[in-house]
Amino acid sequence: MQGLKPEDSGPASGLLAGVRVLDLSRVMSGPYCTSMLADLGAEVIKVEMPGSGDESRSIGPFVEGESAYFMLLNRNKKSVTINLKTEAGKNLIKSIIPECDVLVENFRPGVMDRLGLGPGIVRKIHPQIIYASISGFGQISPLSRMPAFDLVIQAMSGLMSLTGPRGGPKTAVGESIADVCTGMFAAFGIVAALFDRARSGRGRHLDVAMLDSLVSVQLTGLSRQLYDDDTPVPVGNRHPVTYPVDSFETRSGAIVLVCFSDRVFEKLGKAIGNPDLPSDVRFRTVSDRNENEQALRQIIANWASSQSQDGAVNCLLDHGIPAAPILDLRQVLETEHAEARQLVIDGEHAKLGSVPLVPQPVRVSESGRQKTSTPTLGEHTQEVLRALAGTGEDELQMLRKDRVT
Amino acid sequence: MQGLKPEDSGPASGLLAGVRVLDLSRVMSGPYCTSMLADLGAEVIKVEMPGSGDESRSIGPFVEGESAYFMLLNRNKKSVTINLKTEAGKNLIKSIIPECDVLVENFRPGVMDRLGLGPGIVRKIHPQIIYASISGFGQISPLSRMPAFDLVIQAMSGLMSLTGPRGGPKTAVGESIADVCTGMFAAFGIVAALFDRARSGRGRHLDVAMLDSLVSVQLTGLSRQLYDDDTPVPVGNRHPVTYPVDSFETRSGAIVLVCFSDRVFEKLGKAIGNPDLPSDVRFRTVSDRNENEQALRQIIANWASSQSQDGAVNCLLDHGIPAAPILDLRQVLETEHAEARQLVIDGEHAKLGSVPLVPQPVRVSESGRQKTSTPTLGEHTQEVLRALAGTGEDELQMLRKDRVT
Repeated sequence: MQGLKPEDSGPASGLLAGVRVLDLSRVMSGPYCTSMLADLGAEVIKVEMPGSGDESRSIGPFVEGESAYFMLLNRNKKSVTINLKTEAGKNLIKSIIPECDVLVENFRPGVMDRLGLGPGIVRKIHPQIIYASISGFGQISPLSRMPAFDLVIQAMSGLMSLTGPRGGPKTAVGESIADVCTGMFAAFGIVAALFDRARSGRGRHLDVAMLDSLVSVQLTGLSRQLYDDDTPVPVGNRHPVTYPVDSFETRSGAIVLVCFSDRVFEKLGKAIGNPDLPSDVRFRTVSDRNENEQALRQIIANWASSQSQDGAVNCLLDHGIPAAPILDLRQVLETEHAEARQLVIDGEHAKLGSVPLVPQPVRVSESGRQKTSTPTLGEHTQEVLRALAGTGEDELQMLRKDRVT
Repeated sequence: MQGLKPEDSGPASGLLAGVRVLDLSRVMSGPYCTSMLADLGAEVIKVEMPGSGDESRSIGPFVEGESAYFMLLNRNKKSVTINLKTEAGKNLIKSIIPECDVLVENFRPGVMDRLGLGPGIVRKIHPQIIYASISGFGQISPLSRMPAFDLVIQAMSGLMSLTGPRGGPKTAVGESIADVCTGMFAAFGIVAALFDRARSGRGRHLDVAMLDSLVSVQLTGLSRQLYDDDTPVPVGNRHPVTYPVDSFETRSGAIVLVCFSDRVFEKLGKAIGNPDLPSDVRFRTVSDRNENEQALRQIIANWASSQSQDGAVNCLLDHGIPAAPILDLRQVLETEHAEARQLVIDGEHAKLGSVPLVPQPVRVSESGRQKTSTPTLGEHTQEVLRALAGTGEDELQMLRKDRVT
């Protein structure tokens, strides 16, 4: 493989070096976005409430009182405590704004305006800024006042309606996938706006809604809804169209297999010791196999139940059938792949020393090795205020005394 | 709301105008990535096999023989047919490469090298190109030869292991979420590399793996696995830590509610006509509520079962409890929100006329209205080859006769 040497490519790169991000966001969608920017070398100044910090600092599990959830979500950022509810705090923010390229916030629509930090005011202070607003339903929507939580958005987006066991309950994804997808879209939009600004000098306001984001990822389901008036429902782990693409239990754990054509189905017959299977009248074509799904499922399930997980997967792969074990997170992290690809890397934490962090996944050539870290509350307050707001020592002490920082 | 006027902001903007993308990718992860770039104004030249085209053109549902799935995934691209297995086809590609800023491919690792179009050769022809390789397991991995399908990656990433009914089967998301997330990360990485190139003139090779992508989105689950050695398992729709955050059936459809604090739980008691609930010794604190989850669940379920879906949601919202209906895709598209936010827009199709398309979700200020379209097979072959490869009329005819294009 030319052009991508492990020793000089990596998930932490300097692609966004020199970009400064004022990060007023909390908990997940915003912080997920800015961690992606920080991994690529942007200087992310995370503003937190003095004393308590980002609400996510109180979400477990904890290591010596430090939230692991917070640590993973706030890689490579600087933590600065500023109380946005005080005049002095707002003035600090306003004095920093001209030094920043990007502002990210995920308050409910209207809150930034009430703080006097809405896009109208901020873009007047700094017309070239990229002002990114992340919210549940967008800045302008009939629903913009509704409270947005990940589960609310999963419910309203349709994603739950097509996830779950066949005929069973509509099921949420067991990770905050609405927050994550929204953060990813916001990061993409911000970098695109920065690229455009490098040529045009133009600032922008970006409006990123969690509901819009989670709807827009469902192109498979939407193709059926929009063009065929066919509303998807939960079908378990089987493919909505092709069979057998499904999961099965072995003696030692579940597996999936992907039998996407007649040719692969012939191979499956051989793999499970039943070479006549493809000539069985019930299973000759995809539509036969769909019609007789339960019978076919039982035959494959019987075979799988006599195998070990590894044995079944290896047998299927050896016969040319795409297959994989269903792994839990412990097992994923124990794979050779996870180690070879460095899915988990060591980061620095001022109190805990070295901690495991999970960077954004894009590997960039010619990146060299970059340091990774995660901040304690207010770790960079003095450094940032001195450098960007020109705050002197006396003033810093006063601000601290008045609980502004 | 200042700074974001509906009449001049939109999901299709010119942020990436002037960027030319040579898109050799097929089916989903790559096309999802390049549709995001195309929505923002990049010129995406999608190369397809003469005759059959991208495999996704044969995935239903179909409208007059045109795949709806393909149309949704290939917004705003130009379709050019070139047979990459012919020498003349490869030479066409090589003659276009110097005119492009980005190349995207999602073949199995090694295939581009065998075609003579690997990153080593392409980056020699055009050192400033951003060469993005999308694959299941990355360009260098112990697993890089394994076949990758969305279900395979969902299984191996751990996401299935923590999704599904409590105590029930590990469950796949009912959309190709591994493909989608990978495409999103690739689009982010590409734009970041373009931003960097605008300053440094440097090309890059990006290596984006589906497995790495789907692992890296699971920061909530990973915080428990990495820091607490606590491996997540399916817990249905309840929150892993806080109760009651869960789904319930009403007379006319399911709802979710998010009761994330004692204060909100007090409101819940009132909402369901049981104001003494919070003082019940079984439910006083979050840990009490977790311990007596089944009893609490039953009380809320009894109330919900006597309500209509709208009635329950409105009652909860009126009392200050975050709640939402679980909607299917038909219902989502029928909401006022979907219309106000233009989640579905009209696109042009050379054969079908106007077709519904779903753009990337980031709304960009000062964008004006942009046209949206989706291409028929080979619609832009002549136009692109004339403009970028300088191919003359006679040569075009010959290429067509020889089935190179």
